[in-house]
Amino acid sequence: MGQIQETKDIFHWIAPELALLEKTLGETLISTAPLISEVGAHLVRSGGKRLRPALYLLAAKSCGGFDENKATPLAAAIELIHMASLVHDDVIDQAQTRRGTITANAKWGNQVAVLTGDHMFAQAFALVSNKGYSEDVGERLAALVQGLCAGEILQDSALYTADHNLEEYERRIAMKTADFLAICCELGGMVGGAPTEVCEGLKAYGKAIGMAFQITDDLLDVMGDEERIGKPAGNDIRQGVVTLPVICALETSPDRDELRAIVTDREMTDDMVVRAIDIVRASDGVMEARKRADKYLEEARHILPEAVDGEARTAFLEAAAYIGQRDF
Amino acid sequence: MGQIQETKDIFHWIAPELALLEKTLGETLISTAPLISEVGAHLVRSGGKRLRPALYLLAAKSCGGFDENKATPLAAAIELIHMASLVHDDVIDQAQTRRGTITANAKWGNQVAVLTGDHMFAQAFALVSNKGYSEDVGERLAALVQGLCAGEILQDSALYTADHNLEEYERRIAMKTADFLAICCELGGMVGGAPTEVCEGLKAYGKAIGMAFQITDDLLDVMGDEERIGKPAGNDIRQGVVTLPVICALETSPDRDELRAIVTDREMTDDMVVRAIDIVRASDGVMEARKRADKYLEEARHILPEAVDGEARTAFLEAAAYIGQRDF
Repeated sequence: MGQIQETKDIFHWIAPELALLEKTLGETLISTAPLISEVGAHLVRSGGKRLRPALYLLAAKSCGGFDENKATPLAAAIELIHMASLVHDDVIDQAQTRRGTITANAKWGNQVAVLTGDHMFAQAFALVSNKGYSEDVGERLAALVQGLCAGEILQDSALYTADHNLEEYERRIAMKTADFLAICCELGGMVGGAPTEVCEGLKAYGKAIGMAFQITDDLLDVMGDEERIGKPAGNDIRQGVVTLPVICALETSPDRDELRAIVTDREMTDDMVVRAIDIVRASDGVMEARKRADKYLEEARHILPEAVDGEARTAFLEAAAYIGQRDF
Repeated sequence: MGQIQETKDIFHWIAPELALLEKTLGETLISTAPLISEVGAHLVRSGGKRLRPALYLLAAKSCGGFDENKATPLAAAIELIHMASLVHDDVIDQAQTRRGTITANAKWGNQVAVLTGDHMFAQAFALVSNKGYSEDVGERLAALVQGLCAGEILQDSALYTADHNLEEYERRIAMKTADFLAICCELGGMVGGAPTEVCEGLKAYGKAIGMAFQITDDLLDVMGDEERIGKPAGNDIRQGVVTLPVICALETSPDRDELRAIVTDREMTDDMVVRAIDIVRASDGVMEARKRADKYLEEARHILPEAVDGEARTAFLEAAAYIGQRDF
């Protein structure tokens, strides 16, 4: 595997906008309840790649009518929605750490975490009110949150089951990840003043890299080691989430009956998780998933509107390459 | 004491609008995740007095420019925000029932309850996008959610403590209840096309009855019996929430040291709760709280804008009287 590019390199063209975003995120989480401000500051400091607002800002700046001050509140709103949904996910999963940092629920308890998440969702909508955005923006953000919730619930109802197929899997990851990236790119086009067909093209690009991104993430769960991916391998299997490499292995592996018994067992042991990973790694599930991710990245490169050119085009293409390059 | 008036009598002038609200609430909670639709239907069926959207609709209809179809989405958004905050409260409190009905978290688990709440918050913002409302509406709703969250957090940080005063208590209940009712009345004025001073007057009316409403609710917790109020008396004391009658008793009761020892004890027994209630009932805390509630109701009647007349005025005055009449 070659040199992995850092997201800050990919997005260097929008470095000033990303710096302004950080400043805005820091300022926006001030509440009359000091504890909310404290939790907000913790969450902003905990980092994250800011991939979603970066795609939005890139799309916005690539179109003619870019105004940094007009674009920033929506970038912050996008990241707040992402952060809020992670905070609530951590409450639900009773997660203790995320990206190596203690979670809000572990540090302050469920009440504070749930309410801070709610506060951040509301802050996102506050940020886009009275800022001169089209009314479609609020509608898109609301649909985005609703899609994330519905995706989580659909995933939950499919936990520890073994009868999946590609179509169901892709619907699930679209709601969980790809639709979010699609909306970021689309909103960027809208705020940048791009014509409808360019917005649609940007949205399709975002959807395609989002699909590749989640498939790659799911592959990492099978192929990565704990040190690299920041969480134990086989985390999805342990939590009952059946992903594409596993779905393929459930169809074609000679050990598919054993794999099925493991992934449907809510009481699975660590040894069983290790065995399941071995079965999936030995199957053609890994290759199939990688091919599927590559197909989406190829689609993303082709679908990127011609109107997006120059440094913006380079960045979009590098973002797609980055997702394909993620280390296994 | 006398005959208690039902809210449906008070709001009979807006009965058609309330019926349309119910229809809209039923239709609006449809999601791509069938489970979210199911939980939403359960929550709508579980009822509630719809006091907040009723105040909003009353304010809107009392002003000249009322259009039922234009007003309804915001009424539904208001109730959705109220419902979502209750759903999240029940997750936090691990509540098993509300108004005699099983809670979402008890029936479907915390994950579904948290995500359904998030979905409802987002639906509230979706409902007010692209409906021709002024942009202030989205901003008000966001501020409302943020105030509710901050109020809950402030209340939480004051649990099982005994050093309170009227000012701190009133700031707490304003954020928890009164500001919500104030915003409902103000939004009604805005959507009804009332001039700014009428909107401000409606907001002040809503704030005043909201303060009285919460003080009365807190009094009920001390004075009511389980059969009447649908939850065990002393629930606030048990949960560490120190309310106005208790604050007064902590200052003036001859048994104040004993009361202080009980309300600050996180391990308090049922017997201790009963004893605390007895101390508060024997103190002048009950009379003081009732006087404070009456002061706010008097203020509400005076502050109601002159422009609100006819059946609307009657309904607003009856709403204030209803809050004062709530049975002890």
